[in-house]
Amino acid sequence: MKPVNVGIIGFGTVGAGTAEVLLQNREIIRNRVGTDIVIRRIADLDVTSDRGVAIEPSVLTRDAEEVIRDPEIHIVAELMGGTGRARELILAAMERGKHVVTANKALLAEHGKEIYEAAERHGVDLAFEASVGGGIPIIGSLRGGLSANRVTAIMGILNGTSNYILTRMTEKGQPYDQAVQEAIELGYADDPPTLDVDGTDAAHKLAILISISFGAPAALGRIHREGIDRITPEDIRFANEFGRRIKLLAIARHRNGRVEARVHPAMIPTDHILANVNGPYNAIYVEGDFVGPNLYYGLGAGRRPTGSAVASDIIYLAREIRQGMKNFMPPLAHARPLETEVDIQPMDELRCSYYFRFSALDRPGVLSRISGILGEHDISLSSVIQKGRDVNGSVPVVTLTHEALERDVVRALARLEPLDILTHPTMVIRVEGA
Amino acid sequence: MKPVNVGIIGFGTVGAGTAEVLLQNREIIRNRVGTDIVIRRIADLDVTSDRGVAIEPSVLTRDAEEVIRDPEIHIVAELMGGTGRARELILAAMERGKHVVTANKALLAEHGKEIYEAAERHGVDLAFEASVGGGIPIIGSLRGGLSANRVTAIMGILNGTSNYILTRMTEKGQPYDQAVQEAIELGYADDPPTLDVDGTDAAHKLAILISISFGAPAALGRIHREGIDRITPEDIRFANEFGRRIKLLAIARHRNGRVEARVHPAMIPTDHILANVNGPYNAIYVEGDFVGPNLYYGLGAGRRPTGSAVASDIIYLAREIRQGMKNFMPPLAHARPLETEVDIQPMDELRCSYYFRFSALDRPGVLSRISGILGEHDISLSSVIQKGRDVNGSVPVVTLTHEALERDVVRALARLEPLDILTHPTMVIRVEGA
Repeated sequence: MKPVNVGIIGFGTVGAGTAEVLLQNREIIRNRVGTDIVIRRIADLDVTSDRGVAIEPSVLTRDAEEVIRDPEIHIVAELMGGTGRARELILAAMERGKHVVTANKALLAEHGKEIYEAAERHGVDLAFEASVGGGIPIIGSLRGGLSANRVTAIMGILNGTSNYILTRMTEKGQPYDQAVQEAIELGYADDPPTLDVDGTDAAHKLAILISISFGAPAALGRIHREGIDRITPEDIRFANEFGRRIKLLAIARHRNGRVEARVHPAMIPTDHILANVNGPYNAIYVEGDFVGPNLYYGLGAGRRPTGSAVASDIIYLAREIRQGMKNFMPPLAHARPLETEVDIQPMDELRCSYYFRFSALDRPGVLSRISGILGEHDISLSSVIQKGRDVNGSVPVVTLTHEALERDVVRALARLEPLDILTHPTMVIRVEGA
Repeated sequence: MKPVNVGIIGFGTVGAGTAEVLLQNREIIRNRVGTDIVIRRIADLDVTSDRGVAIEPSVLTRDAEEVIRDPEIHIVAELMGGTGRARELILAAMERGKHVVTANKALLAEHGKEIYEAAERHGVDLAFEASVGGGIPIIGSLRGGLSANRVTAIMGILNGTSNYILTRMTEKGQPYDQAVQEAIELGYADDPPTLDVDGTDAAHKLAILISISFGAPAALGRIHREGIDRITPEDIRFANEFGRRIKLLAIARHRNGRVEARVHPAMIPTDHILANVNGPYNAIYVEGDFVGPNLYYGLGAGRRPTGSAVASDIIYLAREIRQGMKNFMPPLAHARPLETEVDIQPMDELRCSYYFRFSALDRPGVLSRISGILGEHDISLSSVIQKGRDVNGSVPVVTLTHEALERDVVRALARLEPLDILTHPTMVIRVEGA
């Protein structure tokens, strides 16, 4: 049995993890696949640094084209990241009939349609388990074990950096900046961690999950996106008083033929299974119409977990190649032609409950004035906490609402904000799993 | 494109759930597979009861052989259960070249080797996602997304009935018998629930998980098995004092080339992710050498979740058939020939921590006598709770140990039990995640 040959483009964290697992577990993998998987070429601009993996120097090249052009290579793993050169290399590899594995969530979220179509046009496979949830096999589960279901909801903690920061703020009462600094020092965050904390990374991943669940690309620009940088320890304490935790959630929900798609901090009950996903862990909660609630949990990043996911895709493709098959699974796990895109509901049509923290003058009648204006916009309160007294006479008035329409919330706040009874902008956090 | 034809044997809870999801989500499934999946025949001794599924009467038959003999049927779903007739029918279907889907964990645990070999011999596929964890795609994950890993540990809550009973005992302080009665009344347990509460059902499922993880059948008789019927509310309260919960766990752990395999009540820390899996839910915690800790959570039983899993297997096979492929995945997801069986470590070689609740005379020196004898067997204590006073002068002496050898524990208890300072048999519960 001839071996299956792999070319890796990008020998950074993920590339090194992938090479490491393929080498260290070579025997286990050979037993599972039925033949050897050989790393034939690794391209990276840096061919000298020690990655702690025993790779022959002759395998390394600075020229990614060498990987694409090598006729012996069956599978190209694009692990360099970015949306420029990576896109070109993937398309070139597909044109030469090579199967492609990628961990590149930004590329798939931004150029997915082009890449999915190229894979189908060239009759090659595209696998991207590592693009969402690190080592968690969520894409395989949506493609396979959940495939009989209409997906009704996805709620994911998809960014380990944000989750680490929020966990520290919750457990230690740290302010945001301090928790960020600690995350950077511990290697859980880039410096600065912009795309992690502003919701962009989670939105990329949500776009991919939506595409697989509903069988069409999702327009990234239509996914509502808010970050965690405005969350204060005070909000975390108030959440706790309401029996809730604050998490950065990526949410997709199927409603009347359209899909809600949004990434933002959300308050969830402390006994919700996602509330106890802490530190750098990721988790994806999926509801299907038959399977009911499911949860998938694991490390969402890092050399070894991500290497595990990339290698599992390589194993999957090697099993196909060994048996002379291909295209068992279309990129989005739907056999029909791609629809233009998933119909994403405009954000102002969202209905959910809200947490408002008003900074108000400590004066009689303030709460009644606030709740009066909210009421005029069909927003009714389910809980109120009003206590403490600030030195400058401003106090927090904290409320939870019953379900309300996002558009009404925006309008009500636009009326409230200019009033002289409010001293600072109002903090708004959506409430899930009420 | 010609449809893929399915024959279902057994129109009980699982059969009806399977038919329901295939019919209700027909359009979604057609989009995913690329062709229709048609239920061509359903065999059951009862062809008259209404299962709430719109099946033409002509599809129903009392003769399972009709399903096997129908040359138009590509996939046979064996959903009748049991290890007698079900085994014969599966083997007969395979002999006629039909792919087989089953939810039958007892059959696979007891006769897996014969059935896996028959599938390979006849060149047909065997899929059994529904046999473990209901709708949770754990088998697909072990076969696919985790396939690059050496599985180092599995800890599962695999029996929803036991978990429901223990949850009620924990949350309401109910005694075992009362919780069982309630579970029966609510339909979470059979009457009597023997195979659920004595660990047999969980052991069947563990045998299947071990087989896939390690690529060989596991001898069911070598899996240590204890039930939950001896657990008292008192033990649950003491567990709580130690910051722990009691769960019925199915555990497999890879140690020096052998595999620990055991089902028993275990105390786990309250902040362990499995400690918060409550009610009828199942969860499987898997550790891989690269992926690290992973968790899979969902409903472990019931018409709709189990139907979801069976239908996902049918979809998988239909995708193969549509593309003229077969045998993409061998039954145990290992391409090499089956080894005789997984090498399971004898139970007396287990090393773990233990909870002992001694019922002792309330006399000075008792604890020192007990701990002395334990010490002679290399068992040292990490915590002791000694309080309360029984009306008849017997008091609980509750201890946690450091890691000890099971064989030493058995010997020490054999020496302690006859002593007149102990008034009742000692409760022993293993401690995990210390």
